[in-house]
Amino acid sequence: MFFHRQELQFKATPDQPDAVYARKLQEVLGGQYGEITIAMQYMFQGWNMHIPGKYRDLVFGIGAEEVGHVEMLATTIVQLLERSPLGITSDAVQDDPTVAAVVGGADVQHAIVAGAGARPVDSNGNPWQGSYITASGNLLADFSQNAAAEMQGRVQVARLYHMTDDHGVRDLLAFLLARDTMHQNQWLAAVAELQEEGIEELPAPSNFPQGQEHTEVSYQYLNFSDGVHASDGRWAEGPAPDGKGEFSYHDGTTTSAPMPPPTHPDSRLYGTTELPNTVEKMAGKAQDKLKKE
Amino acid sequence: MFFHRQELQFKATPDQPDAVYARKLQEVLGGQYGEITIAMQYMFQGWNMHIPGKYRDLVFGIGAEEVGHVEMLATTIVQLLERSPLGITSDAVQDDPTVAAVVGGADVQHAIVAGAGARPVDSNGNPWQGSYITASGNLLADFSQNAAAEMQGRVQVARLYHMTDDHGVRDLLAFLLARDTMHQNQWLAAVAELQEEGIEELPAPSNFPQGQEHTEVSYQYLNFSDGVHASDGRWAEGPAPDGKGEFSYHDGTTTSAPMPPPTHPDSRLYGTTELPNTVEKMAGKAQDKLKKE
Amino acid sequence: MFFHRQELQFKATPDQPDAVYARKLQEVLGGQYGEITIAMQYMFQGWNMHIPGKYRDLVFGIGAEEVGHVEMLATTIVQLLERSPLGITSDAVQDDPTVAAVVGGADVQHAIVAGAGARPVDSNGNPWQGSYITASGNLLADFSQNAAAEMQGRVQVARLYHMTDDHGVRDLLAFLLARDTMHQNQWLAAVAELQEEGIEELPAPSNFPQGQEHTEVSYQYLNFSDGVHASDGRWAEGPAPDGKGEFSYHDGTTTSAPMPPPTHPDSRLYGTTELPNTVEKMAGKAQDKLKKE
Amino acid sequence: MFFHRQELQFKATPDQPDAVYARKLQEVLGGQYGEITIAMQYMFQGWNMHIPGKYRDLVFGIGAEEVGHVEMLATTIVQLLERSPLGITSDAVQDDPTVAAVVGGADVQHAIVAGAGARPVDSNGNPWQGSYITASGNLLADFSQNAAAEMQGRVQVARLYHMTDDHGVRDLLAFLLARDTMHQNQWLAAVAELQEEGIEELPAPSNFPQGQEHTEVSYQYLNFSDGVHASDGRWAEGPAPDGKGEFSYHDGTTTSAPMPPPTHPDSRLYGTTELPNTVEKMAGKAQDKLKKE
Amino acid sequence: MFFHRQELQFKATPDQPDAVYARKLQEVLGGQYGEITIAMQYMFQGWNMHIPGKYRDLVFGIGAEEVGHVEMLATTIVQLLERSPLGITSDAVQDDPTVAAVVGGADVQHAIVAGAGARPVDSNGNPWQGSYITASGNLLADFSQNAAAEMQGRVQVARLYHMTDDHGVRDLLAFLLARDTMHQNQWLAAVAELQEEGIEELPAPSNFPQGQEHTEVSYQYLNFSDGVHASDGRWAEGPAPDGKGEFSYHDGTTTSAPMPPPTHPDSRLYGTTELPNTVEKMAGKAQDKLKKE
Amino acid sequence: MFFHRQELQFKATPDQPDAVYARKLQEVLGGQYGEITIAMQYMFQGWNMHIPGKYRDLVFGIGAEEVGHVEMLATTIVQLLERSPLGITSDAVQDDPTVAAVVGGADVQHAIVAGAGARPVDSNGNPWQGSYITASGNLLADFSQNAAAEMQGRVQVARLYHMTDDHGVRDLLAFLLARDTMHQNQWLAAVAELQEEGIEELPAPSNFPQGQEHTEVSYQYLNFSDGVHASDGRWAEGPAPDGKGEFSYHDGTTTSAPMPPPTHPDSRLYGTTELPNTVEKMAGKAQDKLKKE
Repeated sequence: MFFHRQELQFKATPDQPDAVYARKLQEVLGGQYGEITIAMQYMFQGWNMHIPGKYRDLVFGIGAEEVGHVEMLATTIVQLLERSPLGITSDAVQDDPTVAAVVGGADVQHAIVAGAGARPVDSNGNPWQGSYITASGNLLADFSQNAAAEMQGRVQVARLYHMTDDHGVRDLLAFLLARDTMHQNQWLAAVAELQEEGIEELPAPSNFPQGQEHTEVSYQYLNFSDGVHASDGRWAEGPAPDGKGEFSYHDGTTTSAPMPPPTHPDSRLYGTTELPNTVEKMAGKAQDKLKKE
Repeated sequence: MFFHRQELQFKATPDQPDAVYARKLQEVLGGQYGEITIAMQYMFQGWNMHIPGKYRDLVFGIGAEEVGHVEMLATTIVQLLERSPLGITSDAVQDDPTVAAVVGGADVQHAIVAGAGARPVDSNGNPWQGSYITASGNLLADFSQNAAAEMQGRVQVARLYHMTDDHGVRDLLAFLLARDTMHQNQWLAAVAELQEEGIEELPAPSNFPQGQEHTEVSYQYLNFSDGVHASDGRWAEGPAPDGKGEFSYHDGTTTSAPMPPPTHPDSRLYGTTELPNTVEKMAGKAQDKLKKE
Repeated sequence: MFFHRQELQFKATPDQPDAVYARKLQEVLGGQYGEITIAMQYMFQGWNMHIPGKYRDLVFGIGAEEVGHVEMLATTIVQLLERSPLGITSDAVQDDPTVAAVVGGADVQHAIVAGAGARPVDSNGNPWQGSYITASGNLLADFSQNAAAEMQGRVQVARLYHMTDDHGVRDLLAFLLARDTMHQNQWLAAVAELQEEGIEELPAPSNFPQGQEHTEVSYQYLNFSDGVHASDGRWAEGPAPDGKGEFSYHDGTTTSAPMPPPTHPDSRLYGTTELPNTVEKMAGKAQDKLKKE
Repeated sequence: MFFHRQELQFKATPDQPDAVYARKLQEVLGGQYGEITIAMQYMFQGWNMHIPGKYRDLVFGIGAEEVGHVEMLATTIVQLLERSPLGITSDAVQDDPTVAAVVGGADVQHAIVAGAGARPVDSNGNPWQGSYITASGNLLADFSQNAAAEMQGRVQVARLYHMTDDHGVRDLLAFLLARDTMHQNQWLAAVAELQEEGIEELPAPSNFPQGQEHTEVSYQYLNFSDGVHASDGRWAEGPAPDGKGEFSYHDGTTTSAPMPPPTHPDSRLYGTTELPNTVEKMAGKAQDKLKKE
Repeated sequence: MFFHRQELQFKATPDQPDAVYARKLQEVLGGQYGEITIAMQYMFQGWNMHIPGKYRDLVFGIGAEEVGHVEMLATTIVQLLERSPLGITSDAVQDDPTVAAVVGGADVQHAIVAGAGARPVDSNGNPWQGSYITASGNLLADFSQNAAAEMQGRVQVARLYHMTDDHGVRDLLAFLLARDTMHQNQWLAAVAELQEEGIEELPAPSNFPQGQEHTEVSYQYLNFSDGVHASDGRWAEGPAPDGKGEFSYHDGTTTSAPMPPPTHPDSRLYGTTELPNTVEKMAGKAQDKLKKE
Repeated sequence: MFFHRQELQFKATPDQPDAVYARKLQEVLGGQYGEITIAMQYMFQGWNMHIPGKYRDLVFGIGAEEVGHVEMLATTIVQLLERSPLGITSDAVQDDPTVAAVVGGADVQHAIVAGAGARPVDSNGNPWQGSYITASGNLLADFSQNAAAEMQGRVQVARLYHMTDDHGVRDLLAFLLARDTMHQNQWLAAVAELQEEGIEELPAPSNFPQGQEHTEVSYQYLNFSDGVHASDGRWAEGPAPDGKGEFSYHDGTTTSAPMPPPTHPDSRLYGTTELPNTVEKMAGKAQDKLKKE
């Protein structure tokens, strides 16, 4: 169960209105790596988790914090929109090209749909969607994904930091950056702990009997482009990070197989198929062509 | 530029038709972590990369391989569909409940739309979409995401391995599992190399001056759920993986701020607003209520 | 801020596994009118609300409850999947047509993607999306939408009630039905209160000066189909519910205007346009045609 | 069957070009509550309706009108785009910042994709989608949804009214506002009529035997947030609108249940599970930790 | 304006219920090439058309017919669902594996969401979306697209014809097949007429001054795969269909250019960039590596 | 298998930065008819093709070329973004309204998400999706679709040509225009060849026994709008392009059938149904109404 307290985790009060920035801030609210994604991802990981104890407490413990981050961003956006020009025509400033640029650069649905409110969308107005999240039940894979997602999120917040001079907004972003620092570290620590405790190993999933995979290509770097420098990397020689194999490097592929022969689906699916007369027809066409030549 | 060779990287020939399994295989072709995602992600990372040399050669080097993996899965699906019952009514077996179950469990668009062909969709028929991929230009964040994506992909392939007895299909999956093993290791090696070479550091993005974030909460585990075991993890005390801070643990939040006061948007947006008479009306209503009591 | 307690609002324990039903239950978790929609809708209405006091407390008060409903459904789904056949081939029962039907009717991503976990999707596997929710800032419009959404939700839960014999699941649904009863009533009460307190009126938005609309068609039922019974309804005569007009009935439209003349966009947009020579060409074609006749 | 007449229901002729406004107008054409939604919703309700007579005639009667509203908006948009700068570089005005703002604020697909034509998208360019509509077959739920949708639509048109000074456009919007007034009233009248005729009752669906729901929470307001004013509303005490219960108010939840124990899915799904050795491993880790301390 | 007549263009009465087939039929109602697409496409082409007369009358003339086709399919689906088992558990037949297969193969939202009604989705339950349609304003391009769309549509209807034995359904499909025959022919005739009248030419768009394109590759077949037979086709030699060039064949590309040098975006975007110290760091790493060797 | 060469097919180097144009260029990279669509469409057609030889070599032969076109556009976009103002606030030019317009008209995700990189989206930021492509297995239908898609693509590139003065960009577009010219011609040639070789005929699919369709309406133009000029077209009289029928023209429909009677779905789906008492209730209501009158 979830309970709401009518307080924020941090002060979220912009100094002044800025509708264009409100639109940009939507990215970290409702984008691919926004707070809705993060909150939903941790909650679904919690509900889908098969082991009790510290790992489940961990995802629940910060999942609820992240819903509060959605809240901080939403209330910030609402305030950024409060006295910003949103395209009401009788506003005196309407003919000012700077105002026109602001109105043009804002999210028009902020005004038309939400009446100067926040929306569950990204900075281009794409609605948030469930396909952004990951909750596979394999904790090594999921926590690695969490760490990666927190990195993308922190990169975006850092970029947004430089897109405003507003002290109130920057203060909030400085708070979110710190929490992202924590959460990156936390997931990397959890990834390490899972391995140290011997619960999971690399490569994920660790229980799959590796002998059943085609081990001859399990540690081969195969270069399908013509850049010559890929052989300089640590992925091209030496021990692999999972401690189970030795990297090697090869230009191009080391295995190949012929394309399978054409299929012959049921003729009532009306695909163009290799029927006897097709071959004849092609032959006939070829003959006609020869005759012409 | 890309060039195509009419060969496959590995033999992809099922022993027998299986339309239901063809549908399942769509997940690793066109799903969130399917091969289209992987191929597109690496190519876009290559085109967006700002440094020349081994890291760019790396993403190009395997990006093209992954398009070939899409091809192997697509041709496998086409063969699995070839002689499988797809709902043609005059098929003698139609009344057999097992056949009915097969038809019911298949992807009906395989027959109706693609005429026994593969499709750029996941196992539930959701079309692949560009929002699955990640290419931020920050290599530490992106390569971490690549490693995480290869883990999710390998987990899915491992699950699919146990959902068929077909030796041809299992052989292909055993090949893909090996390549996923390589690619997990490769990206983890690249993540390590970026840090060893001092090009990027944790937390990503490493150039953002960490002093500007609210460092008082940069290494604090804040527990927003009531599970008591989260304090047992390595994320709750001791040095953080980035080597820059020391974890601490706290039940609940350590900071808070009041909710901001209500906004007053332009009345021509027709939101319900806190006008003077609203207050009066509420007061009036309250008085009326008192009188009744 | 949101806080999580590791308890459920109601017992959510199915008597037995049922993967097909788990898929169906996804509808009220992640569908258009599922609990994610409801929870998100109330939270965004809270963040976007411009008046303090009881109406804002109301949306916050039940928004958090609804996140808990998502949780109850997710944990139920996980349990329904626990020992259900999910397509692992070595399961002895695999050739049983009933088992095949179960596997065919299940959500295959429950197994492949989530490892027997719940997902943020509807019963057809469509990811939940932000465009399902409504938060316009106009409380009369929004609360009316809330009431309507709770009705759709309760209709779906009632249908699902008859699609299982599992006592544990039915018990949970009986609880959700009761809460939906409350929430329908609650929003209808709030809609009434807004009007009684004179804060909003019908038609929404009430502040728009109705004299500026084309009042001659504000209360006219115009029949664009040839059914004769629409004139029997209470929408065809008598006072309108908003108390501001009198309904009338008319077959077909009472107003009309010619289609506007064709536009002439910039020729560099390469649309097919009405250039002088187009007219000539058409004329020429017509003459040629005449000559032939 | 549907027949088209090459006339409009109302004059739709802007006084002057305005590409930015053309984009905004897309919201009420192809947005969540735009005319495509409304038209499709009524038509599907008609096709899915199980009772003949006035209610079916009603949805058909206005469904066709609404397709004509799509037409009026589309032709208006085409005219607004006709002579507006759309980014053709040789236009002399190109360096004018106001023109640049116009081009920046326009829907770029209006020019690139549609050649100065209208599109089936909302004001942020999101394509219209079938998931916007509602047609459950339960008329009380559906007509309540229709009323709510007409309210949202009218709110959006009212907002758009103030975003232009163009008399032609305002005239069209004044017409649409009037029709939305009618349609709000009409659906509220239909909702009332359904109940008066005893065909449906509240709560929807009315036939579900209410005794089977958990009636102890059917009329309880449960406050999951800490706002104290929610108890002041009419939803917290007194008779409920359905006439079947009496509201009560409670802070927090009145029921609760423990979280269910962790599930144990098939190990071949490679989730991280609570195996005997997991417990031992955790124990071992804990001991090691103790020793270090 | 559109008017509705409560008649169908053709009898649409299935002989018996079939929920699985109802799901399949959704493809030609709400799929990529279903009737909603066709109807919307023609209507938007009409609204966006810049020339009056026969071409605009043509798109309007059949656009309205196609909305009626949506109606025929929707009412057929509703009837197919009428007495079909939809998962109500107390149905005696529930344990019959054939029934289980039917329920598993049906669209579960037909029951849960629509109450045995039709939906604006395809046969996999993906909602119809505006991005399916094409209306560019260039009539040669648009009418070619219309012809192609009618072909895809007729292929799908032909496939569906063989997936049922129901005479009523087949009768309806036989009608739709005939209309698709007409519409394929009609659009091909319109494509020819546009060219004969000299209004448009190939290649579309015909007004673009072809001398400004890189004409050296305008008629070259470049073979980027290693199949040798592509040179046998009529696209590899001889006059091109537009009458303006002569085809030639070449293995591989005839032009190439170096990849552009890496970009140097603003450092505050936190991408990994080629800074002086990056080069040094790489060099240092290389030296360290040498030393180790 | 696919192999990558680190060269471009043509020089893709803009003369100067232009973030707004970078956004526009996304349309032909990741839009409905962008290069990702084209590349994916040809590759899936190749994998799904049931006949070996020249037609399969053809789709593979240009499929790989098109992935290279995605690459050229992506690298161009990255360069256009390189030194363009992207909203970093300390940039001196920030207050310049022209700069504000640029920032407002740019794709904000180019900066926030991709760090001045390209994205798999269209010019409005909608992610590319698998539902854009067509691969039915029927070559006449698919190649016709390919020709039509290349026309739409060339129309869009031609429009974009006039939206920039940058010589580098125009040079690239001039190259793409030439390739689109080739590809339009190529697919039209392939469509002709399929028919000349007798492999496929019109109407597609040609094997469906046309005698089973309702031939009385197979060549009838039915006018569902009131425009009188549709009868002037070549689709209204004379031989049809498929050589199998003669066009005729008719105002309105030539066939019709009554709407089917209302359905009676299971009452546990809680639709509003025509139960005996519904009829009585309506009658009662009618009587009451009579009494009042």
